[in-house]
Parts: sequence; C-alpha cells; structure tokens
Amino acid sequence: MGEFEFIETIRRVFEDVGDGGITGIGDDCAVIPVGGGDAFVVTTDMLVEGVHFLIDATPAHELGAKSLAVNLSDVAAMGARPLASFLSIALPDGCRSGWAAEFMEGYRELSLRHGVKLAGGDTTASPGGVAINVTAIGRAPLDRLKYRSGAQVGDMVVVNGPLGESAAGLRDIFAGHTGTPLAAVHRRPVPQVQEGEWLGGRTEVRSMIDLSDGLASDLVHILRASEVAAEIELSAMPTPVAIEFAVAGGEDYKLLFTVAPDRYARMAEDYRERFGAALHPIGRIVAGTPRIVWMERGVAVEKDWRGYVHF
Amino acid sequence: MGEFEFIETIRRVFEDVGDGGITGIGDDCAVIPVGGGDAFVVTTDMLVEGVHFLIDATPAHELGAKSLAVNLSDVAAMGARPLASFLSIALPDGCRSGWAAEFMEGYRELSLRHGVKLAGGDTTASPGGVAINVTAIGRAPLDRLKYRSGAQVGDMVVVNGPLGESAAGLRDIFAGHTGTPLAAVHRRPVPQVQEGEWLGGRTEVRSMIDLSDGLASDLVHILRASEVAAEIELSAMPTPVAIEFAVAGGEDYKLLFTVAPDRYARMAEDYRERFGAALHPIGRIVAGTPRIVWMERGVAVEKDWRGYVHF
Repeated sequence: MGEFEFIETIRRVFEDVGDGGITGIGDDCAVIPVGGGDAFVVTTDMLVEGVHFLIDATPAHELGAKSLAVNLSDVAAMGARPLASFLSIALPDGCRSGWAAEFMEGYRELSLRHGVKLAGGDTTASPGGVAINVTAIGRAPLDRLKYRSGAQVGDMVVVNGPLGESAAGLRDIFAGHTGTPLAAVHRRPVPQVQEGEWLGGRTEVRSMIDLSDGLASDLVHILRASEVAAEIELSAMPTPVAIEFAVAGGEDYKLLFTVAPDRYARMAEDYRERFGAALHPIGRIVAGTPRIVWMERGVAVEKDWRGYVHF
Repeated sequence: MGEFEFIETIRRVFEDVGDGGITGIGDDCAVIPVGGGDAFVVTTDMLVEGVHFLIDATPAHELGAKSLAVNLSDVAAMGARPLASFLSIALPDGCRSGWAAEFMEGYRELSLRHGVKLAGGDTTASPGGVAINVTAIGRAPLDRLKYRSGAQVGDMVVVNGPLGESAAGLRDIFAGHTGTPLAAVHRRPVPQVQEGEWLGGRTEVRSMIDLSDGLASDLVHILRASEVAAEIELSAMPTPVAIEFAVAGGEDYKLLFTVAPDRYARMAEDYRERFGAALHPIGRIVAGTPRIVWMERGVAVEKDWRGYVHF
C-alpha cells in the first residue's frame, strides 16, 4: 500500500468520528478551538533514516534543527505563533556517541530562537535506523488563521523570499560540494515564524501554505482547496538559480499566499518596514479548473513541472 | 547512549528554554494553559517494531487500538478528557496487503468509543520495520488536573481495577497460548477514559498516574514527585493471578491514585454508583524517603520487585 492509498484509507475510516469543532485535516495544521475566540493549531511530521535523510551525510545538529523547522513552518503557514513541541526519537544501539547530544543541540538552538518549549516526548531503542517524530503546537485567534481554501479570483499570488536555492543546494551536495552557500541554504532551512504570524494579522491575506514540496505542487493545494486556477509569471519568479529549481524544487520553506489586490501595495510597504525585505508577487488567481497556467511575459507557455518528491 | 542518559541530555539542554506557563514534563502529560481556567494536556508515544511489538505476533487491528490506548491512558491519568489524536506511521514496502487497513480499523474503533478525533498525521515509507507515533490531546479545567506530585502523608493509595492480568496474559502468549482470557486482557488494553475524567472531578484525589510499567515502578514516580513514602499491603492487592504479576508486571493501564482518607468512603460509594465497580485501597502514604514498604498483614517484608521493562 503506497502512502497516498494509506492516507485515503485513513480518511475513509474516520469520516464517522465526530469532530468536536476540530478542522484542518488536509491543511498545514489541524485547528482545535480553545474558547474565547482562540485556537490551537497542531502539526506532526515523521523523519526516517534512509527515506528523509542519510545519517552519514547529515550532521546531527542540522538534522535536529530541521526536524523542528519543518513543523514550525507548518504552524507559520496557518498564521499562528508556535508555543510548544513534542519530540519522539528511536535511536539504534550503534548510534555514534555524541550523536544524540548534537541532535538536541540543533533542536535547542532553533527552539530558543523562536521561544518554543520542548514540552514532552518519548525515546526508545530502534533495531533499524533513526526515526524522529515532532509534533508542534501553535496558537492564534481563530479569525487570523489562514487556510488553503481562502483564495479568491483576482487575488495576487505572492511569495516572501527567493525560491530554488534549497533544491540547487541539494544538487551541490549530491555533486560532493557540501560547503557551497546554496548547500548551506538546503542544510539549514529557516522557518518563517515571525513572518507567518505577521501575515496572520493581515486580513487581506486570504490563503496561505508553506513551500515544502515546490511551488508547482504546493500552489495546486491552494487551487484545489479554493476551486480556482492561477496564472504564474515566470519572469517575476524571485530566484538566483535556474527557474526549474524555483518552480519544481522543494524545501524552500518560504510562505506562499494570496492577497486582495487593492490592498497589496500597502501591505508590501508595511512588510518591508517590519522585516526589511520585499514581497514578490508572481501571479494572479483566476477562475477555472484548479491548475497552474505558466506565463512568460504575459503569454501562456506549456511546461511539465511537477513538485518535488522527497528522496 | 541509553534511553535514560538521552532523557537527561534533553532535560539539561532545555532548562533555559522559556516555558510560557507550560508544565508537566516528567508527568503523564504536558499541561498547556489555554485561558479561561482551562488547559490542554498533551502526550506522545512511539512504538517501534522489534522493540514494542513483533509484527507476526501482533494482529494489526490490536496494534492500532493499542497505539491509541496507551496515549488515552496518559490523558486519563491527568483527570482530563481526550479530544484529538495525531498518528504518524512509517510503513515498509513489504508490509502485507491489508495490514494498514486493519491497523486503522483498530485505531478507529477505539477512537469512536471515546469520541476522539483523528485530526492529523503523517505517513512515510520505512526501509526498516513499522514505526508508529501517536500524540493525544485532552482538555480539563486547570484545577481538576491531577499530578504525580500531589500525594500527601496520610493519603490512601488506591487502584481502580485488578492488576497483573496483562502480565500473566503475556506469559500465556510467550507460552504459545494466545487465546486465553488473560492473553485477551494483554492484547486489548482498556484505557480508563471515563474513570480518569471522573476522578479529575474529585477534589479528594490528590495525585494520579496510569499503571503502564507496574505498580512497583509507577508508584515510585508518585513517591519521588511528592517526596513521600508508601506502605503497600500485599493481602489487599486486587489480583486473580500471582502477586508478582500484580506488583511487578506491566501494561495494566488501570489508574493508581491517592485520596484524602476522611473522604475515601464516600468517594468509593459514588464511584460504585457511577461505574458499577469497586475501588481497591492498597495502602497509605507515609513520611519518609521515597520508597515502597511492602507489608503482609501489617508487617513489613523485604521484596526485590522492580517495574516491568517493556521487552
């Protein structure tokens, strides 16, 4: 049974379990109302040695930081502030001495940077490789949460940073060049924690997702959930590397969101004032079957780009 | 690095991460205040093939139920009501067709029984065996939560059901007798969900834990956290099997708690009325270094019982 088939099984068998107001399955996080107009958002992510990372190619402290970063990125994509994380880890007997301490040091540095409490977890032996599971919990007023389903026809499609560096960095690493600036971007993903919370406070932001699998894949999640299409202008793509990395690469962990067009200019100004950086409008939401129309200087072009599949 | 050494590493490196009011590390669940006098409680547990279960000896639907049950038991031990769960699972390619569907069916049955929503999760391939991580979230008023640290000198020590059946059932299973009534108890643990929430509402209950590793181990957690000792009367132990299973066996998933003595009789009456079952007082909290004094008809006896270590 493949992963997607299994997810379908999960969806099917759970249709009849009452939800108690809990929503968000299929979004970046589940949403649990807590009363007083607030909600907790929750996300969980499992990383397995040999599937998501190679133990000899990944410094332990980078893996520790990355395990948390991918979850903080999901919390940020909801417009929420991360509060706490829970870490489970299965460690083989043969694990190099010091590995776990280095892993925790990387996890700790990122936790401290964002004031996120490690509130619990589980440790166990492993007869196979290392397996890591992180659950992150964030909080926001319910009316600030951003879903994949909120995009409206006419919205601008925006990203908050350059794309493709991480995928180009992975290419460098595969070629043995582990010390390049691009490789460093891949190895140390930066979750957009403050940016996500700030965007949550802007009512003109109508939908949001984090870029984990690549624009060509992640934007489609917004389009399907919102039942709209998008025109994306390739000449507007903010990338210092080849356009394929920016469009079909993965693990950028920037935020992708749609914005009411008449309020975009003011918002971009406020964003620059707050973060000292530009936003990058890359296209428009249009009516139609959920799909991306790639454009080159206003003319539709055929491209066969798909999202990144994690190796 | 062993599990306990690793936990120490985690504790040490996280001492300086601000807590935002979050407590409960080292208790059954972490406690996150949500405002309005309420709290969420969160617990997480990882089960690894070859460490916690043998794939050929464990029916998939029983494993599905058990994965959730152990977490619901932790929520119950706080006096809280479970709301939602999050399931991550790593599945090897060679996993028997139908295994995942049966696993989910067991998980679903227990979720439905207790109205707990599967709110999210993650699925991934596994180059080794099956790995499962469940995070459960519950809710309760802050002033109803029961901690390990609340036991007071003079409290009665109470359990809410027979002990040792699960460990005796495991012995049956190891002997090849997988169909005995005791084996069934081991294979289908019943988390004390309603009982835990009810006990949370009783102010005379001063400390609580669930019995996962055996009385001799789990009671010591209460004693250490509360800085008290206990006298346990072996002749009062509710068990249909040998006393060793009741005291040093594991996976009973009954609740162990301490109660203000002058209010115990009334509470036991109310419990019987609510659940149609008896409570079982097995001893007293006394002053002293945290340790268990085993008694036989009022006389202290030397025993070398330790808690169960999950195989």
